[in-house]
Amino acid sequence: MTIDDRLSAIRGSHEGWSLLTDRSDVKWASGFSGSSGWLLVGPVSAHLVTDARYTERAESEVGDRPIEVITTDASNDRFATTSRVCGVRRLGVRASAVTVLDASEFRRHDVDVIGVDIASLRRRKDDDEIELIRRAASIADRALQDVLPMIDVGVSELDVRDELDHRMRRLGADGPSYDTIVAAGPRNSAIPHHQPSPYRFAEGDPIVIDVGALLDGYHSDMTRTFVVGEPAPEWRHWYEAISVAQALGVAEIGVGISCRHVDEVVRESLGDLATWFLHGTGHGVGLDIHEEPFLNRSSPSILLDRDVVTVEPGLYRGGLGGIRIEDLVVVRPNSADVLTSFPKELLCLPSPRTT
Amino acid sequence: MTIDDRLSAIRGSHEGWSLLTDRSDVKWASGFSGSSGWLLVGPVSAHLVTDARYTERAESEVGDRPIEVITTDASNDRFATTSRVCGVRRLGVRASAVTVLDASEFRRHDVDVIGVDIASLRRRKDDDEIELIRRAASIADRALQDVLPMIDVGVSELDVRDELDHRMRRLGADGPSYDTIVAAGPRNSAIPHHQPSPYRFAEGDPIVIDVGALLDGYHSDMTRTFVVGEPAPEWRHWYEAISVAQALGVAEIGVGISCRHVDEVVRESLGDLATWFLHGTGHGVGLDIHEEPFLNRSSPSILLDRDVVTVEPGLYRGGLGGIRIEDLVVVRPNSADVLTSFPKELLCLPSPRTT
Repeated sequence: MTIDDRLSAIRGSHEGWSLLTDRSDVKWASGFSGSSGWLLVGPVSAHLVTDARYTERAESEVGDRPIEVITTDASNDRFATTSRVCGVRRLGVRASAVTVLDASEFRRHDVDVIGVDIASLRRRKDDDEIELIRRAASIADRALQDVLPMIDVGVSELDVRDELDHRMRRLGADGPSYDTIVAAGPRNSAIPHHQPSPYRFAEGDPIVIDVGALLDGYHSDMTRTFVVGEPAPEWRHWYEAISVAQALGVAEIGVGISCRHVDEVVRESLGDLATWFLHGTGHGVGLDIHEEPFLNRSSPSILLDRDVVTVEPGLYRGGLGGIRIEDLVVVRPNSADVLTSFPKELLCLPSPRTT
Repeated sequence: MTIDDRLSAIRGSHEGWSLLTDRSDVKWASGFSGSSGWLLVGPVSAHLVTDARYTERAESEVGDRPIEVITTDASNDRFATTSRVCGVRRLGVRASAVTVLDASEFRRHDVDVIGVDIASLRRRKDDDEIELIRRAASIADRALQDVLPMIDVGVSELDVRDELDHRMRRLGADGPSYDTIVAAGPRNSAIPHHQPSPYRFAEGDPIVIDVGALLDGYHSDMTRTFVVGEPAPEWRHWYEAISVAQALGVAEIGVGISCRHVDEVVRESLGDLATWFLHGTGHGVGLDIHEEPFLNRSSPSILLDRDVVTVEPGLYRGGLGGIRIEDLVVVRPNSADVLTSFPKELLCLPSPRTT
């Protein structure tokens, strides 16, 4: 898909003018990656409104595409500029990306904003997008392989987090895809979104590592769980249960399958253990780390060809610890194309051996 | 200021119930640092609404403060929960932190949101906040000192960026305060918000480094400009002009001074060169990297005691290059308490010598 195709998709989704204010939407439809940019799409023209800090980047990233770059300043603000350029009273926007304050500023310029569905346009990834996500996933795979030898008793969550993030960049990532999670021990690993701390690994600790790379705006997302030395028997049972549930979830992926169904299959596989499964089974990934579709009990979505989604069941109980296994997959007609290739067998560290 | 004081300030600023949805507002008023939290503040009670991923962190960070932690799930969403807890029809919010979609969800629950001024409550920093920002600034100072010896012909922008970010973390930062900028050469350094690239330094290149550390939610912000070898005479003249303008700007800082005045003094000092000064003179810094007050030509703000702001004039012209010098300061009655202590004399690298 070219930028022209994407602009056409926006024009086809909504009569009249649309305004993209979400940074990822703007990047998708124009190529511009700066933090301050609005893309105004009319029936025949498109205009990128930015400020002087970004004029040069905007012109360079837009290139020879049919998008006019407009630089605003204090005397000529973006609301007035938008109103002047489009000259309409009703402007289609992503309702989750325009604030109440912005809406009231538009009203002062006689423009009403109405919600239009922009999120769904970005769901199905094209070949170039899948290739970027695949490369991002491969960088995270490699970085995790590279840091594995450092994991041992006495090493801290922060030590591993810092090394992972540094290595992903040295391997070509623009940065981590989100705040990398390294969560160890019976307490921290039982917190799904634990913040890495100075906690040092001890014998028998589970270590949950949730890591992804960012590449040209695209995200990867993967979780693997390890153990230092020998795990508790109950925890080892959990690991086996999650391995089975996660594999069943991936096996259900395919075009036309409901997101709720995938979540149900995973939950049913866990049986009574599902009490400790505290979040949904997955989410879409692309220019945002969390985007449509969401795979959980209340999701209304059906999987589409080229959706990129995670499958990531986990179990968490303070005292015993936590575990999560997460793959990133591309939805294909009858299967999942798995982008995360790091092994999923339980590794007891140090001196990795498959058990 | 304790959390109780902050909750009282919110209660004093607005009759009735307020809802804080901005992550920094929630952190400031409750201590909770997660990405999914709403703080509902009533005349006598306060309630933190989060989801199961964050229940444990919320309870731990809120501690024994008088704030009830409420976990929502798919069957009991945050809009319904908020409506049920507050039972009011008009809820005060930060209008720049509530989306049009959220507002329409509230309307479905018979709640209207109205804008209230929460930003100004966070402007004046207390001793603990200033201490955190000072420590963050000192980490960035130290990291920049540490990486200076690596700067030489053939080293890339990315090499320096990666090393700076890694060192800040090893020095105790939670991460960089924003996307660290390393912008070198006649073209890249002339882009105010350049993204670090594989570009390798050459003899005579200016190098603009804009770096800050993040510490417990608080940001620092600093820019220094260096040169590899000997600069062009015109660029050296620019450096002197910016040094003078920046020092004059800092000297103007004090309680009761208008932000516009500081910007004017800097611009006047630059004379004809001000044509190449493409952005405002500064901005507030705290739990957000850009917050009130803003120091530019259209700012309506007057500096208050304990505002923390940047003073950062720059000049940018493709072909010649760019330069920016930025300090972070605390506003005091008659002066600025400068938090960024890295030297500002021109350093010609490698083998730093003051010229």
